[in-house]
Amino acid sequence: MTDDVTFTIHAHDGAARTGVLSFPRGDIRTPAFMPVGTAATVKAMYTDQVRALGADVVLGNTYHLMLRPGAERIAALGGLHKFMNWPHPILTDSGGFQVMSLSKLRKLTENGVTFQSHVDGARFELTPERSMEIQALLGSDIQMQFDECVKLPCSDAEAERAMRLSLRWAERSRKAFFGKKGHAVFGIVQGGAVPSLRIESAKALSDMDFHGLAIGGLAVGEPQEVMLDMIETVMPHLPAHKPHYLMGVGTPDDLLKSIMRGVDMFDCVMPTRAGRHGLAYTRFGRINLRNARHTDDGRPLDELSTCPAARDYSRAYLHHLVKSNEILAMMLLTWVNLAYYQDVMAGARQAIVEHRLADYVSEVQAGWARGETAP
Amino acid sequence: MTDDVTFTIHAHDGAARTGVLSFPRGDIRTPAFMPVGTAATVKAMYTDQVRALGADVVLGNTYHLMLRPGAERIAALGGLHKFMNWPHPILTDSGGFQVMSLSKLRKLTENGVTFQSHVDGARFELTPERSMEIQALLGSDIQMQFDECVKLPCSDAEAERAMRLSLRWAERSRKAFFGKKGHAVFGIVQGGAVPSLRIESAKALSDMDFHGLAIGGLAVGEPQEVMLDMIETVMPHLPAHKPHYLMGVGTPDDLLKSIMRGVDMFDCVMPTRAGRHGLAYTRFGRINLRNARHTDDGRPLDELSTCPAARDYSRAYLHHLVKSNEILAMMLLTWVNLAYYQDVMAGARQAIVEHRLADYVSEVQAGWARGETAP
Repeated sequence: MTDDVTFTIHAHDGAARTGVLSFPRGDIRTPAFMPVGTAATVKAMYTDQVRALGADVVLGNTYHLMLRPGAERIAALGGLHKFMNWPHPILTDSGGFQVMSLSKLRKLTENGVTFQSHVDGARFELTPERSMEIQALLGSDIQMQFDECVKLPCSDAEAERAMRLSLRWAERSRKAFFGKKGHAVFGIVQGGAVPSLRIESAKALSDMDFHGLAIGGLAVGEPQEVMLDMIETVMPHLPAHKPHYLMGVGTPDDLLKSIMRGVDMFDCVMPTRAGRHGLAYTRFGRINLRNARHTDDGRPLDELSTCPAARDYSRAYLHHLVKSNEILAMMLLTWVNLAYYQDVMAGARQAIVEHRLADYVSEVQAGWARGETAP
Repeated sequence: MTDDVTFTIHAHDGAARTGVLSFPRGDIRTPAFMPVGTAATVKAMYTDQVRALGADVVLGNTYHLMLRPGAERIAALGGLHKFMNWPHPILTDSGGFQVMSLSKLRKLTENGVTFQSHVDGARFELTPERSMEIQALLGSDIQMQFDECVKLPCSDAEAERAMRLSLRWAERSRKAFFGKKGHAVFGIVQGGAVPSLRIESAKALSDMDFHGLAIGGLAVGEPQEVMLDMIETVMPHLPAHKPHYLMGVGTPDDLLKSIMRGVDMFDCVMPTRAGRHGLAYTRFGRINLRNARHTDDGRPLDELSTCPAARDYSRAYLHHLVKSNEILAMMLLTWVNLAYYQDVMAGARQAIVEHRLADYVSEVQAGWARGETAP
């Protein structure tokens, strides 16, 4: 890495590690959960709330931002950090995943992808070079290589084709990035659910001088065991001194099990999306506030929570807000969920330092399994 | 008034007054703007934000709360203050206005109104006695008499019929309230746009020992001059030592002109509703953030505002959030609007103390008229 970007591991516990990934804009404590700020906003949250919960970095989506409001526009306005009022590190994805899942009339070639915007039908092209250019225009601290992510299950041949294309795009992405001081670029391991392909991808990317390595193409419909198997398969072939980022994952259980297998960074829409749909993640497990059993329940979600939204409002009130489609329901439950995710990560970091991660994970899982007694 | 509820006028400036309406739960500085918390939430706002902006009291809607989650349920959960996490004074309307505007299959008799819920079709009855019972169950600090509000324009005969019915309901409401310590009940002047009816209503209510008097049935479609005429007509017939509340009004201009005519309290959905529709109230006038002219405008809404949402985000960003239908757009613009409304009220209170209200109003109006230069 350049001197301006460093990754220091402070402690190990089995395959798990805790440390700090440092940028001029700030430190990212790992293992880290990155809230997703798709369209330059972590939905239903003020940025100072996101920060106060312990988030050191948020994720922005290249695909969404290039379509609206446009990368050149954000650059002219001073970059994404200023635009969204988040002065801390930002990771941007490459746009590859969402081009495949959201855009219309797309055409994939060796050079890249041409597609139609899902917003207004305008034509766009995304290539490794354009993706890196957009991410630089946004001012992203951690930029991701442009890749092709296939849905699982898929044929081995399809997984292999996409993996090899992603490797060629990795080389072009790395070259297009070309050492921007104080910024980093990560490669992305692909290869579907085929161990040999995953290993080949990991090895090839490890030789390419990325600042970190991501595992992509998981949490796309496969069972948790398949995901964990792939992590275990890949991990020995990733440079141990570089950060490992598992993209788009997952439930709190996914996070803890992945941390035990050596993952340092995560992003996922789950806590924010669930919060907009009446679901709360708590140390008692996931609670569906839409359920009628909360109608007369005067208890808060968790009186010991660090989050005011979990302490200062009754379940009956949250149920009422959810049933009434009130914006405050989304605000409070997103807050609760991001707080819980960050608390789980903080607990994992502390447990690794104290070499008791397995015990910590068991305790947290036991809390979910125990659930709660009725009011 | 009872000793537990006092209204002290500190200064006059022409017909305008400034003072404090005191309850065991807290003081309301007048002239006061009450944000509307229809369904036990000021939409898109945390209660501590509402408080920090200078709101001393919020309004709850009896009609909405009786239908969902139900008055008896809120009482069992400890009352509306605890339910919505707002420990300061709450004013509740009587339900009369919304029964007429929102419910289905309603039937009006001397006794009250039977109607079908717009939420689930269930049958309800609202009478003066039931309205007061519901408001007491909610724990409302300021309860409003049950009245019938007609839409303007209407025939003089219709205005007279509704006014007289409202007077009979006022007597029943006052009797049903029966001196709850630390709480207040207000009568509501009706009479459409007919001066003689308004005067008759005001005089009759003034004899009924209410803690305050409201002017209802305005801001229902009539021009501003008609509204101001009615205020001027009514005001000499209201007890000067009791608070005067103009219901459901209005724009910042409506507020200032009404304050100059002796109004002490206001409520209106305008700042919160406008905030959910991309409109910002500022000292430069109303700004429509949906407008394409903001696309590349890096300036904040008002760099001198007391509200972070008006200072820390560019118009380009707010435009982007509005166009993208992001929840944060509604959160930020509602915040901006309530901040501006409270600032206007604070300025008016100060100006009355300094006997320069007319100058203050002229300055504020000049700011709106001047607007802004292009970026």
